[in-house]
Amino acid sequence: MEEVDHLAHERTKAQFDVDAMKIIWAGSRHAFELSDRISRLVASDPAFRKDNRTMLGRKELFKNTLRKTAHVWKQIIELHLSEEEASRLRFYVDEPAFTDLHWGMFIPAIKGQGTDDQQKKWLPLAYKMQIIGCYAQTELGHGSNVQGLETTATFDPETDEFIIHSPTLTSSKWWPGGLGKISTHAVVYARLITDGRDHGVHGFIVQLRSLDDHSSLPGITVGDIGMKFGNGAYNTMDNGVLRFDHVRIPRDQMLMRVSQVTREGKYRQSDVPRQLVYGTMVYVRQTIVSDASCALSRAVCIATRYSAVRRQFGSQNGGQETQVIDYKTQQSRLFPLLASAYAFRFVGEWLKWLYTDVTQRLQANDFSTLPEAHACTAGLKSLTTTATADGIEECRKLCGGHGYLCSSGLPELFAVYVPACTYEGDNVVLLLQVARFLMKTVSQLGSAKQPVGTTAYMGRVEHLLKCRCDVQKAEDWLQPSVVMEAFEARAARMSVACAQNLSKFASPEEGFAELSADLVEAAVAHCQLIVVSK
Amino acid sequence: MEEVDHLAHERTKAQFDVDAMKIIWAGSRHAFELSDRISRLVASDPAFRKDNRTMLGRKELFKNTLRKTAHVWKQIIELHLSEEEASRLRFYVDEPAFTDLHWGMFIPAIKGQGTDDQQKKWLPLAYKMQIIGCYAQTELGHGSNVQGLETTATFDPETDEFIIHSPTLTSSKWWPGGLGKISTHAVVYARLITDGRDHGVHGFIVQLRSLDDHSSLPGITVGDIGMKFGNGAYNTMDNGVLRFDHVRIPRDQMLMRVSQVTREGKYRQSDVPRQLVYGTMVYVRQTIVSDASCALSRAVCIATRYSAVRRQFGSQNGGQETQVIDYKTQQSRLFPLLASAYAFRFVGEWLKWLYTDVTQRLQANDFSTLPEAHACTAGLKSLTTTATADGIEECRKLCGGHGYLCSSGLPELFAVYVPACTYEGDNVVLLLQVARFLMKTVSQLGSAKQPVGTTAYMGRVEHLLKCRCDVQKAEDWLQPSVVMEAFEARAARMSVACAQNLSKFASPEEGFAELSADLVEAAVAHCQLIVVSK
Ligand SMILES: Cc1cc2nc3c(=O)[nH]c(=O)nc-3n(C[C@H](O)[C@H](O)[C@H](O)COP(=O)(O)OP(=O)(O)OC[C@H]3O[C@@H](n4cnc5c(N)ncnc54)[C@H](O)[C@@H]3O)c2cc1C
Ligand SMILES: Cc1cc2nc3c(=O)[nH]c(=O)nc-3n(C[C@H](O)[C@H](O)[C@H](O)COP(=O)(O)OP(=O)(O)OC[C@H]3O[C@@H](n4cnc5c(N)ncnc54)[C@H](O)[C@@H]3O)c2cc1C
Ligand SMILES: [Ca+2]
Repeated sequence: MEEVDHLAHERTKAQFDVDAMKIIWAGSRHAFELSDRISRLVASDPAFRKDNRTMLGRKELFKNTLRKTAHVWKQIIELHLSEEEASRLRFYVDEPAFTDLHWGMFIPAIKGQGTDDQQKKWLPLAYKMQIIGCYAQTELGHGSNVQGLETTATFDPETDEFIIHSPTLTSSKWWPGGLGKISTHAVVYARLITDGRDHGVHGFIVQLRSLDDHSSLPGITVGDIGMKFGNGAYNTMDNGVLRFDHVRIPRDQMLMRVSQVTREGKYRQSDVPRQLVYGTMVYVRQTIVSDASCALSRAVCIATRYSAVRRQFGSQNGGQETQVIDYKTQQSRLFPLLASAYAFRFVGEWLKWLYTDVTQRLQANDFSTLPEAHACTAGLKSLTTTATADGIEECRKLCGGHGYLCSSGLPELFAVYVPACTYEGDNVVLLLQVARFLMKTVSQLGSAKQPVGTTAYMGRVEHLLKCRCDVQKAEDWLQPSVVMEAFEARAARMSVACAQNLSKFASPEEGFAELSADLVEAAVAHCQLIVVSK
Repeated sequence: MEEVDHLAHERTKAQFDVDAMKIIWAGSRHAFELSDRISRLVASDPAFRKDNRTMLGRKELFKNTLRKTAHVWKQIIELHLSEEEASRLRFYVDEPAFTDLHWGMFIPAIKGQGTDDQQKKWLPLAYKMQIIGCYAQTELGHGSNVQGLETTATFDPETDEFIIHSPTLTSSKWWPGGLGKISTHAVVYARLITDGRDHGVHGFIVQLRSLDDHSSLPGITVGDIGMKFGNGAYNTMDNGVLRFDHVRIPRDQMLMRVSQVTREGKYRQSDVPRQLVYGTMVYVRQTIVSDASCALSRAVCIATRYSAVRRQFGSQNGGQETQVIDYKTQQSRLFPLLASAYAFRFVGEWLKWLYTDVTQRLQANDFSTLPEAHACTAGLKSLTTTATADGIEECRKLCGGHGYLCSSGLPELFAVYVPACTYEGDNVVLLLQVARFLMKTVSQLGSAKQPVGTTAYMGRVEHLLKCRCDVQKAEDWLQPSVVMEAFEARAARMSVACAQNLSKFASPEEGFAELSADLVEAAVAHCQLIVVSK
């Protein structure tokens, strides 16, 4: 049957320069051209086909991802791709793959927490993929509460080794991506014990499988945790379970940049500031915010095109029916999501700047903005991932029955996206952290400590508490300053109200627990303000 | 490892009679015992195992459902199950199956729209499953707008036959469950054309496949439309595509209870009122509301149990951590969903009464309450399915990482549930129908036509527009009458505001289109009031 370009007419109606917008969206002409080139490379290579992804059984699906990941690696080598190109290539292949954690967490953990010697030893192996690593933090019993992890790493001064052990069922590592079938190594988080004393959770490099035949090493039990949401989605990934039965590793496999255990078993802090760890968190969460904008824009793109092509009802005299995009209800559901996708894109770019700023300050031993930067990225991670997950599902519904078919792309997009609300910090737990920071900020108002960065508006709290919105007619809302002040006033008032209610409790902790639902709302209002302001 | 009953302690704390509540939930002691007995039957029969459902490839999955459906049928015969028992059995087997549409739409369509003779001929075949039927209404190009269907049924007086034909690509039937692989027959909706005149959409019984070798009949192209959301979910079902190339069927296969075509090709209305069709809609939507409560209660049950068992943070002096159910944020997300599950249960029971009432009135030729009953069920279908879909996903998130595993049950529950927001009327399209009815009701206020049933509160509109809530302290909200008046006042004010804004437009249709987003909100407020009042 003939092919018709149903969108051509809509496209001619754009009131802005589409090519210029493409560049703005990509961030720069260079970024646009890179994306364009790599996306074509992926689209034209049959090894990367995606159309069968939702139809394969689990085993076939996983093998398929293995083949793709190997092919990606081959392409990177053969085409001499830069790090930037390689990362774009992985992005467009568009499947959770076991190497995600290798590049995304294993290597960064060694970079951030390893000494220079450790980096020199392990990073070349990892870069050449002679070893494959995963990130084994979460256990069956503890995800959000990392300090509650139960795996132990007990120092044995006799042999100069740590003994890694899983003392309980709940201490089993549970979830790490790349663990179930593939990884040869892991960064394992465990309670460090020397001389009977518990020093809390630290990271260790542990070999899991033989480099000769890939069999699991003695004392190690490892497997896949089974099916996850969706057809393809994270089922292309071997999220795993891992138990240790007194597994011995050399002392120098504890990541020792921030704290060390000596040959004699003494525990010491180095002079590298612990706060460096938060710098990495700011980095990871910044990428999550950018990813949110990508995911939401894909969903919005599908739903917008569908809404322009789909016609339903309203035909007069046998003419064409109305495009569903012309229904106000469709618009009132779709357009705010479109706006959000852009907003998250710009706030993501701003977060990149924030990360650079924080890094430079850390290098100059200036920790003053770190709490604010940390609260800001935690809050934005929570806000943007929640909005994106809900937004993808709304886009799916906007496509009627067709949105329920995998061929629309939306079911998979949802299933693969939603865990972003849970990993790298459960979204509610993160908002509670933001709220804690806001309450501290409010309590310090009037003191010498001035609110900085995204909390600077709190400095005008007296004005914000009593100002009244002077909007007279609808058009007044088009003034950015009016919108900003409304968001500022709302955020400030909610925070101050929470702080006042908190002060009525005998203990702050009790008050915080009782009021936590309100506190979360105040945190959301603060984060919405940040998005609006950037 | 030892099995611990982590919930035992929680269970001893119930402040109500749990056994009495089970009966109330089930509707009656009889219903409870029936459910209990049949659920055990399913749980103890290995043929009905569910644990492998998410792991099978599409083909294996589908074969598995075929085996189960055949086994259900065998059990029904062997155990001489009553219709009530059989329907419970299918409920607990808990997989969309091709027979769902056979029992749920094909047979009811023949019962509702077929003449006595047609019923006598087709129903026994269907009851014995000597034929298997599906419901072929939606086309690629038309779902919500049924009046826009394009398939034609042209009467040929020469041979006394209808010629069923798919004139365009968009006229292909698309979505019918049971169509892709299984059904031998379908009720097909097509534009009736006699003597060159188009009489709009009517239903026809069409044989699709041979009863000897199941091959598709000449002129019929039929297939499966591919993968849908989730692992198992609707992938156990063969939703299909169907095209006709001038397929001939005898004249007596048009469903002729309400309108007929004579031997000479004359089109006639019978004296059976068309409104009967709406009676069937009230019935189907009432079952959807009951199903919403089932689905939501299952999700809430899983999330509540998890929240009681899961402990995270807050351990003092090495003691146990806090049960996450004790966090106010967890409560503020979970408990409203628990309350909704109960509310939907009770409003579902009330709808059963409404259906009986409407049916009795229809039989007595009293159509006066039909528009109100129709708007009410349409609105409640929309409200409860939207809330349930969102609620299941919230329950999934409440279970942290574990909720993302299929073994939690929640991903499948979501994937199999969400199309309820789309089928049997897109939820937004339904709310617009409710809004239309509300605007009509408001416009008739003060006339002789008094608002009835769920719109009776509109009769007190003057009071509701000016009354003020006299709540002084938090406890006052515990009085049902206070809550009711607040919901009534809100719903009345929103409807009246919309009506006033509508009157400013030159044409009501233009106004309705422009204000449709507000109208949908007014409709939601009205539906929420109904839920609160029952
Ligand atoms: C797809 C996926 C991939 C993953 N990959 C990895 C990986 O590679 N490596 C790894 O180590 N881990 C990984 N994880 C695990 C992930 O980091 C955890 O699931 C996450 O940290 C959340 O913890 P949890 O599952 O224990 O949730 P829980 O903490 O059990 O949360 C359950 C509920 O309790 C609530 N809650 C918890 N604490 C509080 C509190 N203090 N106050 C109020 N409410 C609270 C939460 O809001 C939530 O509603 C992955 C998870 C997923 C889903
Ligand atoms: C799992 C599943 C099973 C199904 N089983 C069957 C079956 O057995 N037999 C069968 O015949 N069909 C079946 N269907 C089809 C189903 O009935 C349709 O998908 C449904 O009627 C919605 O129509 P649509 O898909 O055309 O949505 P559309 O009408 O295309 O809706 C797309 C968007 O447009 C909006 N929209 C449409 N009209 C308006 C309007 N007037 N004003 C404002 N907004 C509007 C909607 O709100 C929606 O956001 C099934 C569908 C699913 C998902
Ligand atoms: Ca599958």
